[in-house]
Amino acid sequence: MAEANKFVLWNWDDMYEYSRVLAGKMRADKFKPDAIVAIARGGYVPARNLCDQLGVTDLLSIKVDHWGITATRDQEGARLRYPFTAKLAGKKVLLVDDIADTGESFRTALPVLKALKPASIKTASLFLLENSKFVPDYFASKREWAWMVFPWNFTEDMAVIVGKLFEEKRGAKTLNQVSAALLEKNLHVPKNKLADALNELAARGDLKETVTDANEHAWTKGGEKVGNSRAGAGRAAKVPRPGSRRKHR
Amino acid sequence: MAEANKFVLWNWDDMYEYSRVLAGKMRADKFKPDAIVAIARGGYVPARNLCDQLGVTDLLSIKVDHWGITATRDQEGARLRYPFTAKLAGKKVLLVDDIADTGESFRTALPVLKALKPASIKTASLFLLENSKFVPDYFASKREWAWMVFPWNFTEDMAVIVGKLFEEKRGAKTLNQVSAALLEKNLHVPKNKLADALNELAARGDLKETVTDANEHAWTKGGEKVGNSRAGAGRAAKVPRPGSRRKHR
Repeated sequence: MAEANKFVLWNWDDMYEYSRVLAGKMRADKFKPDAIVAIARGGYVPARNLCDQLGVTDLLSIKVDHWGITATRDQEGARLRYPFTAKLAGKKVLLVDDIADTGESFRTALPVLKALKPASIKTASLFLLENSKFVPDYFASKREWAWMVFPWNFTEDMAVIVGKLFEEKRGAKTLNQVSAALLEKNLHVPKNKLADALNELAARGDLKETVTDANEHAWTKGGEKVGNSRAGAGRAAKVPRPGSRRKHR
Repeated sequence: MAEANKFVLWNWDDMYEYSRVLAGKMRADKFKPDAIVAIARGGYVPARNLCDQLGVTDLLSIKVDHWGITATRDQEGARLRYPFTAKLAGKKVLLVDDIADTGESFRTALPVLKALKPASIKTASLFLLENSKFVPDYFASKREWAWMVFPWNFTEDMAVIVGKLFEEKRGAKTLNQVSAALLEKNLHVPKNKLADALNELAARGDLKETVTDANEHAWTKGGEKVGNSRAGAGRAAKVPRPGSRRKHR
């Protein structure tokens, strides 16, 4: 089992390139979808990029919710937030997510699409994690479990990771101190991006800006309130585990 | 009126920053949406980024199709591709697109959302062009008309722009020649990205790879066939005009 503190911070250009790898595999297969369905929220950017790279104009999305960040993956679950209806009968459909982690999102969305009688359905994700119970038809890279920090989820992931940091060790922290603490977890976040995230979290109410005794700019955690976002609420204390993801992607 | 040959090539980090500007304006307004609706396809990436920056988990999309790249904007039109139904009653909804160009996408989608009785609807786009008949509640930047090449539409835009280039002046062109011709149109595409695009267009069948008499690697346009994508079909010969967009975003 991989360690909990295993992070990979992805940048935007990487993500476009990984989509390009997927597009190349599909082209090699002579698979050209008529419609692309993005699993919300994680699949939005890869799905949009695949539209560009494959020349597909028909783009839809299906919202899958997850619950349970639990010790055993069997207790996790997923369900649709809204009924999904679209005229997909007779079409070649591609279902896209950013990552097959537990595989639950794909396993939840697939039967819903199948019921709409498309000519065929293929599945694709940028990454496949080794523990996934579902293997997409196309993936750009297969990997050991790690917390993938995608650029489109950067702020939320930072809210959880930095929030946990402040709970492990209370007190005001400067940018350098937060940066060093993240490096101890093998997560290197460029300082300008980290500063952006801390400011963003302060603006959201997750952190408070303060000044240390040494007159340095610093941040503290604002009491029990973890944030003004539902996405962040109650998540900060939770430790990421192999095979488990945050509640919402 | 702006010139037709006015391009702006955006990178991914810029786009995340412009979303951040939008998020900041909404926060200043104390507007926190319960749900974000992306206009497909253009709104997908900004909508996903706003979810991250505002802490919103409820993400949906609505597909608007456009027709007509015409001399007068009055002849343009837009319509929904699929019926849009979602439980938005009583929710604060944010409708997102990448750009308000003619404004048709917003004007088409808004009444559909309104019919679902949300508590309120706000609209947002990264850019507002001066000629737009619709002004979103939030925009990060207002600009004169230009062809905005978004990173999530890079390949398709290059298919149109480079396709036009090959029609204006037939014959094989090396990477340097394509690059120089684009520079004449005030479009600077970094050579590695341009090479990616030319290879992608060759893989799609839009261009053919060849070798010049001087034994240099080059590309030519493959007869009348503009591409194997519906998105590209028939578009290459059309000149972008102020206030008119490509058929699909």
